[in-house]
Amino acid sequence: MSSRDAELLISVDRNGPASMQAQLERQLRDAIRGGMLRPGSEVPSTRDLARDLAISRPLVMEAHAQLAAEGYLALRQGAAPRVADTAPRQQIQDLPPESVLTLTFRYDFRPGIPDLASFPSARWLKAAEAALRIMAPNDFGYGQRYGVLPLRQALADYLGRVRGVSADPRQILITSGFEQTRALMARTLKRRGVTELAVEDPGYSDREVWLAAGLKLLPIAVDENGIDVAALAKSPAQAVLLTPAHQSPTGVVMSGERRLALANWLRQRNAIALEDDYDAEFRYDRAPIGALQGLAPDHVVYAGTTSKTLGPALRLGWMVAPSDLLLAFEDEMRLMDCGRGRLEQFTLAQFITSGDYDRHLRKMRALYRDRREALLAVITDELPEVKISGISAGLHANVRFPRRLDEAVISEAANKRGMGLSFLRGHYLDDAPEESTLLLSYASMPESSLRTALRTLAAIIAGN
Amino acid sequence: MSSRDAELLISVDRNGPASMQAQLERQLRDAIRGGMLRPGSEVPSTRDLARDLAISRPLVMEAHAQLAAEGYLALRQGAAPRVADTAPRQQIQDLPPESVLTLTFRYDFRPGIPDLASFPSARWLKAAEAALRIMAPNDFGYGQRYGVLPLRQALADYLGRVRGVSADPRQILITSGFEQTRALMARTLKRRGVTELAVEDPGYSDREVWLAAGLKLLPIAVDENGIDVAALAKSPAQAVLLTPAHQSPTGVVMSGERRLALANWLRQRNAIALEDDYDAEFRYDRAPIGALQGLAPDHVVYAGTTSKTLGPALRLGWMVAPSDLLLAFEDEMRLMDCGRGRLEQFTLAQFITSGDYDRHLRKMRALYRDRREALLAVITDELPEVKISGISAGLHANVRFPRRLDEAVISEAANKRGMGLSFLRGHYLDDAPEESTLLLSYASMPESSLRTALRTLAAIIAGN
Repeated sequence: MSSRDAELLISVDRNGPASMQAQLERQLRDAIRGGMLRPGSEVPSTRDLARDLAISRPLVMEAHAQLAAEGYLALRQGAAPRVADTAPRQQIQDLPPESVLTLTFRYDFRPGIPDLASFPSARWLKAAEAALRIMAPNDFGYGQRYGVLPLRQALADYLGRVRGVSADPRQILITSGFEQTRALMARTLKRRGVTELAVEDPGYSDREVWLAAGLKLLPIAVDENGIDVAALAKSPAQAVLLTPAHQSPTGVVMSGERRLALANWLRQRNAIALEDDYDAEFRYDRAPIGALQGLAPDHVVYAGTTSKTLGPALRLGWMVAPSDLLLAFEDEMRLMDCGRGRLEQFTLAQFITSGDYDRHLRKMRALYRDRREALLAVITDELPEVKISGISAGLHANVRFPRRLDEAVISEAANKRGMGLSFLRGHYLDDAPEESTLLLSYASMPESSLRTALRTLAAIIAGN
Repeated sequence: MSSRDAELLISVDRNGPASMQAQLERQLRDAIRGGMLRPGSEVPSTRDLARDLAISRPLVMEAHAQLAAEGYLALRQGAAPRVADTAPRQQIQDLPPESVLTLTFRYDFRPGIPDLASFPSARWLKAAEAALRIMAPNDFGYGQRYGVLPLRQALADYLGRVRGVSADPRQILITSGFEQTRALMARTLKRRGVTELAVEDPGYSDREVWLAAGLKLLPIAVDENGIDVAALAKSPAQAVLLTPAHQSPTGVVMSGERRLALANWLRQRNAIALEDDYDAEFRYDRAPIGALQGLAPDHVVYAGTTSKTLGPALRLGWMVAPSDLLLAFEDEMRLMDCGRGRLEQFTLAQFITSGDYDRHLRKMRALYRDRREALLAVITDELPEVKISGISAGLHANVRFPRRLDEAVISEAANKRGMGLSFLRGHYLDDAPEESTLLLSYASMPESSLRTALRTLAAIIAGN
């Protein structure tokens, strides 16, 4: 930025005990030593400082020269003065290491990340431009924490049309993604007296939020038709967490019979289901299957997100809540924050109503279908002994071996070759089967990389 | 959108008991009656449906015609088929009213909202464009929940330079605004065993988050030099919530002596302060005063936000935490959500480093200074008996009357004239003074509206 407009926290006291030049030097020196002005950053020019402080320019020039002599400032003819890169600084205390380690692998097979290079930047920017054009001054205020109406309307239309969700826009709350939806759900369940939450087994390995809210988790087995509803009915669960469209992580699609049984159980037990419809937009060779929510809208909280369709970076999700739960969710949200940014909500609404969202989904579905084919072809060639499942939808395959692999050794060897791996075993609360199952995401790699990486992986497995 | 690309959840079973046409009709009818397809919304054309379902087009045309005859669809030559506005629908149950009532007044004197019409849309869009250009594919992934490094770096520079905050970028966490910062603080304090939190009195009227976390609030009086540190030292408080730069809502600037006393108390008690630096960028006729954090960085959590500088709609804030608290805050954040949208974080970083943020602040400061002058001029004319204070910074004035007004009656009369009012009385935890004080924001109205509204207000007060 031009130093002309730079703001700086400095003042001089005409009647102070020290001279104005000494005051100025002292403040600049302290600001640099204390880290308030950082190495390489611009400081205001002598002209601007003289003007802002209403003191003479030669006096500022002398102060600058003194600080340059002391090694604090770097002055060059015709350039803005800067803090010297080697300026003396107070030692700052040791900081803890950054606590969320985001390992990035060249070949990442771990499920959960879509193709990040496909974010539709140009279209998104166009939608943002349109959003800024239609936003009225009041739309730049606080508004309602649970979301802007145009987005809730666009989602009600979209979810009804594409996912069979039965929703009035007023039943839709905008969240910062499934993590916030889940946090709201955990606290709301607990506050309503729910103590035991059934979860699919295998299922999500990340359980901290439920446990922190004081809920006990009851693992219910998943078979080739989805969660075992008979076992669920025998349990004391008052709520259940589900991924019916594409079970996470087995990829099983819940059968129609099970869906009906589950809807009946929800009504009979007066229970609540949280349906995480995380990647159902991506289906390949089976008929689309609507959301469970459409079968029992009074008992299902439907959760969706842009994390798999556009990218996790947007941090935008939604929940469709039975109307008698809306105020409870809003109460919990009020204890967390004041809602999502309104500009990106208007932008997503534009992106959906313009048809760009549907177009992007079609494009991505074709891309992922090709990558899935490439994955299947290589696996059939290189790992003939495995059984592949869960591939009719979503972004990853379950690859089951006829024996138990040395999973730790294989993961480590893969990591060393720049590959991220995930096994099914870590997703069980109850005992996992003896045989090993690899979860292989085909979403984030171009086909050629996918082939190379899979062949390397097959070689690692063959050698262990 | 063109119906060509519209996604729709419909499938037909070639081997089902009903004819394919009957299946199609039934599904469309159910989707419309159940609200999944909403009145006025487009349905796919016969051509697209026939292609997607792999059935003959005449068959789809007959299904459409049947549904039009039943009143579900509106068909017009050359136009995409739509759900009829009068389509039969299942009754949806009554929904509760929207629970956050955002009253909008034509003349809003209530503090807390900047001039919403001044949002720098064009510059922001430019920054978003630049951000999208520099973001690498991985930047569209999950990343670290506490914020992207470029924004934390830009803020460390900015806060050091303009607010005297001593921060390493690693000590900065990005939040969705002060509400999330406060929620993180409340839970972290509680978890560290703090039970009593001192608050300025008068202070924030919104106390729910602290109470919900199980903290007891201790009101400490504010005088013309800021919070009474001697009274604070006599209290059992282990933490304190402060607005030193421009006390909310009295507008008092904390004196240098009090700051030093407070910094000493923090060290002696080993206590923590949450410094809410909510509108300190706007100062008019006094020397800038740095953040308290600079005096005691190991004991102060500094909180800032774009809500007053750019607008509440962005939902972007930050906290600068002592390094020994970073992991505790991250722990609490993990139980809430997965962080802010990364695109807007990169955008704000661009907006700051390009100099646009400083330029915008200069522009707004001039605008607000003019509005403040207009406010003072009218008040001096129309309400000669009042005492005005708290106007050297921020966006509102404290207007103190020599007597107690009938505040409820005046507020109601003002509301009826389209005016939003806020009195100081509601901000006290302990007993408020007998005399009435009005909080008058001059931020959100152009000067002419401000004058008109103030004259009307003066007339209302004179009549009561």
